[in-house]
Amino acid sequence: MSAKSLAKGSPVPGPVPAGLIRVYSMKYCPFAHRTRLVLEAKGIKYETININLMNKPDWFFEKNPLGLVPVLETCQNELVYDSPITCEFLDDKYPAKRLLPTDPYEKAKQKMLLEHFSKVTGSMYRISVDKQKSMDTTKLEEDLQDQLINFEQKHARMKTRFLGGDSVTMIDYLLWPWFERLEALSSSKHLEKTPKLKQWMHLMQQDPAIKATAHDTETYRGFSKLYFAGKPEACDYPL
Amino acid sequence: MSAKSLAKGSPVPGPVPAGLIRVYSMKYCPFAHRTRLVLEAKGIKYETININLMNKPDWFFEKNPLGLVPVLETCQNELVYDSPITCEFLDDKYPAKRLLPTDPYEKAKQKMLLEHFSKVTGSMYRISVDKQKSMDTTKLEEDLQDQLINFEQKHARMKTRFLGGDSVTMIDYLLWPWFERLEALSSSKHLEKTPKLKQWMHLMQQDPAIKATAHDTETYRGFSKLYFAGKPEACDYPL
Repeated sequence: MSAKSLAKGSPVPGPVPAGLIRVYSMKYCPFAHRTRLVLEAKGIKYETININLMNKPDWFFEKNPLGLVPVLETCQNELVYDSPITCEFLDDKYPAKRLLPTDPYEKAKQKMLLEHFSKVTGSMYRISVDKQKSMDTTKLEEDLQDQLINFEQKHARMKTRFLGGDSVTMIDYLLWPWFERLEALSSSKHLEKTPKLKQWMHLMQQDPAIKATAHDTETYRGFSKLYFAGKPEACDYPL
Repeated sequence: MSAKSLAKGSPVPGPVPAGLIRVYSMKYCPFAHRTRLVLEAKGIKYETININLMNKPDWFFEKNPLGLVPVLETCQNELVYDSPITCEFLDDKYPAKRLLPTDPYEKAKQKMLLEHFSKVTGSMYRISVDKQKSMDTTKLEEDLQDQLINFEQKHARMKTRFLGGDSVTMIDYLLWPWFERLEALSSSKHLEKTPKLKQWMHLMQQDPAIKATAHDTETYRGFSKLYFAGKPEACDYPL
């Protein structure tokens, strides 16, 4: 995971070695983080190729016409992108330790919860952008606070230890990357009014997949500062 | 399907009768059309409750906090909304005639194709809105044309008779509603440059589920005129 990201002009990587799956990622991308969490949680053998998202190699658009990470590539030259699709593909292809429920309604509930959460990810991105421009984010932060309260109260009913039951399942990993970055964004004060989400975060921090992919708040802040200033070296921070 | 839609003030429907599943729909909604196609294709016994989307009953927000159709409701009081989620839920709950491939990569490809298609649905909606305001839609129509060409060339490789293989599968039904409405939107000239999509449409028109849920172009035009003029009777056109 400490390999330098590939930028424009870099040679196209060779075929995926037998017995491995490849993930095209960027160390700090929350969407690629989802895929890496699922790879870790399921104990899948994988290799990581980091892409410099601010100076992409031309060949990367052959992997994903949208030019975004995550992308999975298999030994059979299968290419899968869009983070929830990559995670479900891994769960289907490596069925040993299922992360999505097999019960149709439990599975549908996780997908609906993910849709509701998209408001939170949208707000967090807008706050990041405006903060780096030194704009006033008071209104956006209030909206985020309301969305988190609404999410805890209405959607994630939180009668269980985790979002999909009493053990960690797919939905926990799909949402986690934004919670790991919440303190870097402003401060963890947002969770003071959502004690159950805060408790969930504490439980999640004990999970081996979370630990294996974690960065600390100072690292996210260092990355963000460079990223929103348009510096291509952001993707390799702190190298 | 000819039942009048329920509007604000209408009583909340009773429990779903045993042996049936209920779909909350609106006769002309392309998203609810997806769910109705899957219900028909799988031969599931269902009842339809049409919602007046321009004057929604208060209780409908208890079924879906977003207030949108489609919503599925089961005898066990399970509620499922968001059209791709409802379709997959039906495929999981009634596994007899699978519409989604079981092969992980084939399934992932259908989901990626659906993501690419979201550009087309967005363009079609904007053209509808602007046309009703008598605005110039030349640029939007050109964009739609380009998106359809791009979709046919790059994403739907169209080596098979249908979008997911040589028989109708989930992806065909998920995309169909927008093609059924294409002629009502402007004219079918958009398909002149995408002969394979045009051929696919002809094949699809023979499918029993398509036939069972179809409206003709004049009906869609009649609905659209009332809908974009803000008339609540649009949802019951031509009653």
